[in-house]
Amino acid sequence: MNQDKPFDVIVAGLGPAGVTAAIYSFRNNYSTLLLGQELGGATLVSGEIENWPGMVKTNGFELSAKFEEQIRHYCQDGTCLKNVLVSKISKEGNLFKVEDESGDTYLSKTVIYVTGRRPIKLRIPGEEEYKNKGVTYCATCDGPLYKGKEVAVIGGANSALKATQMLMNIASKVTIVTINDKLKGDEISVQQLEQAAKENSNLRIVYRGNTMEVKGDGKFVSGVVVENMDTKEKEEIPVKGIFVEIGSSPIIDPVKELGLKLNKGNEIEVSKGMETNIPGFFAAGDVTDIRDKQIIVAAGSGCTAALSAQEYLTKNK
Amino acid sequence: MNQDKPFDVIVAGLGPAGVTAAIYSFRNNYSTLLLGQELGGATLVSGEIENWPGMVKTNGFELSAKFEEQIRHYCQDGTCLKNVLVSKISKEGNLFKVEDESGDTYLSKTVIYVTGRRPIKLRIPGEEEYKNKGVTYCATCDGPLYKGKEVAVIGGANSALKATQMLMNIASKVTIVTINDKLKGDEISVQQLEQAAKENSNLRIVYRGNTMEVKGDGKFVSGVVVENMDTKEKEEIPVKGIFVEIGSSPIIDPVKELGLKLNKGNEIEVSKGMETNIPGFFAAGDVTDIRDKQIIVAAGSGCTAALSAQEYLTKNK
Repeated sequence: MNQDKPFDVIVAGLGPAGVTAAIYSFRNNYSTLLLGQELGGATLVSGEIENWPGMVKTNGFELSAKFEEQIRHYCQDGTCLKNVLVSKISKEGNLFKVEDESGDTYLSKTVIYVTGRRPIKLRIPGEEEYKNKGVTYCATCDGPLYKGKEVAVIGGANSALKATQMLMNIASKVTIVTINDKLKGDEISVQQLEQAAKENSNLRIVYRGNTMEVKGDGKFVSGVVVENMDTKEKEEIPVKGIFVEIGSSPIIDPVKELGLKLNKGNEIEVSKGMETNIPGFFAAGDVTDIRDKQIIVAAGSGCTAALSAQEYLTKNK
Repeated sequence: MNQDKPFDVIVAGLGPAGVTAAIYSFRNNYSTLLLGQELGGATLVSGEIENWPGMVKTNGFELSAKFEEQIRHYCQDGTCLKNVLVSKISKEGNLFKVEDESGDTYLSKTVIYVTGRRPIKLRIPGEEEYKNKGVTYCATCDGPLYKGKEVAVIGGANSALKATQMLMNIASKVTIVTINDKLKGDEISVQQLEQAAKENSNLRIVYRGNTMEVKGDGKFVSGVVVENMDTKEKEEIPVKGIFVEIGSSPIIDPVKELGLKLNKGNEIEVSKGMETNIPGFFAAGDVTDIRDKQIIVAAGSGCTAALSAQEYLTKNK
């Protein structure tokens, strides 16, 4: 891409933090480019939402569609939004060079980095081969595809419990596989599921289970191999769907060479103003060390990042 | 009021921070009482709103009505919401005693204090009549509504400078009116604006200007009358927007005796988790030292305060 002059702001990421940052950037007339895969980001796949202020009940699709409408309002010719993954961000003198997966590069005076998190993978044989062919990382997105089928949920903490609760309404049988000797998460959900497993043959909890391999018929998942961590005994559980719910990690590959200060969980350390240790580079939302990974908190932090970027642009004219 | 047992959470204030804190508190099953004058708080009077994510355009009434609907959803019998000003909060052993203007008192294990701020007004003729009809107290909220129009900023310190910098990107002409003989605020901004006023006919600085009267056509602002403090000469500056930026003050009268740590501007000092120096007492939104006094930021901080209060309640069972 030929740029006459660098953008004031590039927002990398299209979740609630990115959308809010972009709104504040567009409205205050800063030249802004918004890059990312899909408008809504993780919100898109977050299922039912009851904690977004001003909406008694909504869902990821609906809220993301509203975000999209608003972005399109400020970006009517479409030139300030490109649906593409950011692959690399580097410093080029006083500017940032942002490269996307299509190979295009853009220069910007500031970056607001809001890429969020991606689910952690099992890294076991068969996982990649059967990804989206039975192996999935989003129960709320893909759950309904497994109506009347047997599925496994891998993981034993809150996201796994939530997935299980949802799948119990859809699948014919759910097996949770956790490496721990009990479920972890909010007390009510743990009790409910333990009780359900006792009473209900449609729910099974496998404790101390190490998920070893995804099995399939070449086209689709047919089972998952689990090893008991104590006895080392292996069992192949016949399932059509495997829901991997073992956590998530911040998406920081594109900024690996920038020298950003990260915490132990690889989250970008930010100040109250969403500044990073690199002047002109701001971060917000779930990719940062903000404690609460909540849509409304991400949105608020996106606003703060945008206003900090504007302060920076004013001081560094 | 007779209370069998103390509330888990009292939320004092009904703006976006309070509403969000209450949603997170209700949904996680904490006994919660919400006290404050009007649902929406300062949002209610903030006119057109274009920076609330998910709504291309709304206004204070509409957004506040949505907040109200959501609160009523969780509070159907009405016992968890009382429309009354909080008059005093004190410590009573491990609990907080919250008194309202009607004389009722309530005990609670935690308080989330979100009373917001009140703008300092000019107290001149026309100001009340044209409030939200050209007279506004929030440049970041309303600035973009004055695209291509002439505006005045009343005030000569940081918030006025910030408003001016922002408006220079939007309005066709900006006149700053200050009673002082120079601008006050961070050096870079002052220099930039003084320089810009010399070079740029779109910015004018009126020093030693006493703002006397808001003029209008009955429907909307048409100008502002400024008197030179030395010559006593009066001038009517034709503008469509008057941004009063002579400051606002946090509403802290009810907590004066609590021993809260305040900054120089009387804002309650909070940690990233919206904790104050008093255990069990949390604050969020514009009454705190959070830099960005924005609806979406206040909402995000309300969520954080609620989750911190829940952490506190878990630890202090």
